[in-house]
Amino acid sequence: MEMPEPDARVLGNRDAILKALAEALPADGLITDPHQTLAYECDALTAYRCPPLAVILPATTEEVSQALKICHQLGVKVVPRGAGTSLAGGSLATADSVIIGTSRLRDTIEVNYPDRYIRVQTGVTNLSVTQSVENDGFFYAPDPSSQLACAIAGNIAMNSGGAHCLKYGVTTNNLLGVTLVLADGEVVELGGAHMDAPGLDMLALICGSEGQLGIVTEATLRILPKPEGARPVLIGFDDAETAGECVAQIIKSGVLPVAIEYMDRLCIQVVEDFTAVGYPLCEALLIVEVEGSEAEIAVQIERIEKIALALDPREFRVSQSLEQSELIWKGRKSAFGAMGRLNDYLCLDGTVPVSALPLTLRRIGELAQEHQMEVANVFHAGDGNMHPLILYNANLEGDFERAEQLGAAILKLCVEVGGCLTGEHGVGIEKRDLMYEQFSPDDLEAMMQVKDVFDPDWMLNPAKVFPLNASAARRSLIATQGAAK
Amino acid sequence: MEMPEPDARVLGNRDAILKALAEALPADGLITDPHQTLAYECDALTAYRCPPLAVILPATTEEVSQALKICHQLGVKVVPRGAGTSLAGGSLATADSVIIGTSRLRDTIEVNYPDRYIRVQTGVTNLSVTQSVENDGFFYAPDPSSQLACAIAGNIAMNSGGAHCLKYGVTTNNLLGVTLVLADGEVVELGGAHMDAPGLDMLALICGSEGQLGIVTEATLRILPKPEGARPVLIGFDDAETAGECVAQIIKSGVLPVAIEYMDRLCIQVVEDFTAVGYPLCEALLIVEVEGSEAEIAVQIERIEKIALALDPREFRVSQSLEQSELIWKGRKSAFGAMGRLNDYLCLDGTVPVSALPLTLRRIGELAQEHQMEVANVFHAGDGNMHPLILYNANLEGDFERAEQLGAAILKLCVEVGGCLTGEHGVGIEKRDLMYEQFSPDDLEAMMQVKDVFDPDWMLNPAKVFPLNASAARRSLIATQGAAK
Repeated sequence: MEMPEPDARVLGNRDAILKALAEALPADGLITDPHQTLAYECDALTAYRCPPLAVILPATTEEVSQALKICHQLGVKVVPRGAGTSLAGGSLATADSVIIGTSRLRDTIEVNYPDRYIRVQTGVTNLSVTQSVENDGFFYAPDPSSQLACAIAGNIAMNSGGAHCLKYGVTTNNLLGVTLVLADGEVVELGGAHMDAPGLDMLALICGSEGQLGIVTEATLRILPKPEGARPVLIGFDDAETAGECVAQIIKSGVLPVAIEYMDRLCIQVVEDFTAVGYPLCEALLIVEVEGSEAEIAVQIERIEKIALALDPREFRVSQSLEQSELIWKGRKSAFGAMGRLNDYLCLDGTVPVSALPLTLRRIGELAQEHQMEVANVFHAGDGNMHPLILYNANLEGDFERAEQLGAAILKLCVEVGGCLTGEHGVGIEKRDLMYEQFSPDDLEAMMQVKDVFDPDWMLNPAKVFPLNASAARRSLIATQGAAK
Repeated sequence: MEMPEPDARVLGNRDAILKALAEALPADGLITDPHQTLAYECDALTAYRCPPLAVILPATTEEVSQALKICHQLGVKVVPRGAGTSLAGGSLATADSVIIGTSRLRDTIEVNYPDRYIRVQTGVTNLSVTQSVENDGFFYAPDPSSQLACAIAGNIAMNSGGAHCLKYGVTTNNLLGVTLVLADGEVVELGGAHMDAPGLDMLALICGSEGQLGIVTEATLRILPKPEGARPVLIGFDDAETAGECVAQIIKSGVLPVAIEYMDRLCIQVVEDFTAVGYPLCEALLIVEVEGSEAEIAVQIERIEKIALALDPREFRVSQSLEQSELIWKGRKSAFGAMGRLNDYLCLDGTVPVSALPLTLRRIGELAQEHQMEVANVFHAGDGNMHPLILYNANLEGDFERAEQLGAAILKLCVEVGGCLTGEHGVGIEKRDLMYEQFSPDDLEAMMQVKDVFDPDWMLNPAKVFPLNASAARRSLIATQGAAK
């Protein structure tokens, strides 16, 4: 992946910049020692690495504002970073940039049950939000696989989803308000504890904007009352088409499961070898989870059973106990880890219409053969959010690049069948140059003009989201003509 | 309400402009006769009236594009209009503008059950969307009170809700994609039939943008499988505080009703006089509707009953039949009509946190006394979306202006208690100059810069959304410096 040339002026002024940062910012939130900044050289897309000039870890909105102000004055680019779990390189630093991380923004500010919201600093982890309220019978719905580690800041930046978003929506559907610090340090409030605000929906614009428009330091999140119970069903099929048909029929029938997860044979095999949770070895395994009271669960499972049995499944198994439910989910949740034990893999994140799942799976198989690589599939089938894992060998020269080429072909396929380049991982650096597959130059120009409004000097999260040639052209225009505004 | 001076150049060129429109556009979609344009002099905020220069009613996206192109070339402002049901003056014309209406955009383009969407031209009514799919067991969730008449175009422009949005969300939660025609006639596609697209969320920005950014000609809408059944419960209380407490406890308990509607004594009385549906006369009446299978409904009603009875209600009545359910809803749905038989009224649309409902209701009562006017309250309590109806006498000089003054005071109150100026009616001209109550000048400047991106000459839906002095300053800046871009 090509990265822009670092700004020679900034690199040349390195010592002066670090000195100015040290003078302006509290010592306990500033890392400049190259041995320590090395810990921030990559996120979860570890194939790309670059340590930043410095790392700032503010503990309050005011400190974030102060950090952005000083970077703005010094003309230093800023890379916002949550917990660094991005699979798309969303928080990869550049050599001429400073990382502002949210890891010390850990306070819960307010919990309000009558109005069903929680207000947190955005460095808290996704899972900890639910942990803060679960004793009172509430939970926070979006649940990315990385929920133990990932920060709310990153969830907002990437509009994260998770297995349960089929029923409860993704981050944008559960975000009520934010405190946003702009590129020049100005602090603004968007949204609130109420329904959508008048005027243009700036809150929705911030959600999923991948650190291009500002740094979100506090967020008001919708919390929901916890359902009484939940129960997963395992359904195994001999071919992907029938599994896809089963998903479509369940959704059409009026049952809205909390989750419909899909695993293919390769994934089942690897997971079973690792966890021995008792999955049937078949071509396509669905985990369908429903929730509610006992009566509600029974009604839904009855309907799912009727649909599934008519499709002649290899296996239909309803969890009979909490232990069985935990085993069923343990397998699914271990899938990425199990795969990682055996192989290096590139985890893709494309989305297709549910009805296009069978065609897409078949074409992915064909593309894998053409590229002579293996692909395992494990994904959120209910909303068509696919996560093909392309297996490669990091010690084999050129193998990662071949995986990337296949990845690009698969993501183009997602767009071709009426889907899009990303479901929940974001564009980051990974899909930056594929944006032309989804958008016309005019579409991208409109998005870039919106970025101009928030970040007129293009100092936030460089080399992400927009194709490098487009953002490079933007930056050289700003350099010659002054800021866009 | 102050309106900007019409553009003398446009008024002076009236005949030439109408001639140019007639030459460029199909005759069956153009109205220039002043007797006929009079029908378009107002929307449902009938206190404000102004006939446009002309009305264009295109039947295809291409014709909308052609119409916007010619208006762009002629330098004529454009007011987009759905069915004209806006209560906020969202489609009020100006004397120097042309209305582009969606009333002939009536086709259903595609119905797709496996992927749960319908694609329509945006002139179709809200109710007709559900009618297109209900025989196959589906429905479209947002259900504004005007659903028989209002167009999807207007629903998208205002991000409309309705009684059922407590469970299913508002328009933005049910909108997957749009075809948008920009001010210069360019046609763009945003979103699609898949989950959220990569890059900035331009689709969310369009939803609720009140015709400031373009005209939406086609929309892909999420349709949902219809629940098996639904049942309303009537709960009457002797005071607003206890009713508010009941709403908060129901929501906290884990039941998520489809709707929680609220009526106060004045409203109950007027509705009962008109419809005789058998409402108990009390201070605060809740209609709580739950849905699902028989078993699911029973579980939810049991929980609601337990909560309500502990609060010592005046009345607790579960509907025992379809007929009873229809009667209960008939009263609620007749509320606005019943009130209109007796009085002129100004229907407000503010939103407050649910926990602030009792305080807000009390303060509204006090404000009404101070202003010596009567206010009836009927609204969506579950999400805090209030619709105070200020009664006035249109034949009494100055009475409407006094109603407007009280309305402004009530909307300021909504902002003070942590809410916002509008829930689902939009800003339009009605709340334009109140935007300073909610937003700082910098907030509004950022929104206006986003409008610059889409409508650089500020030709779309003049004098709405932004305070008149702010948009006037913008327009004179453009006039002296050329377009913003």
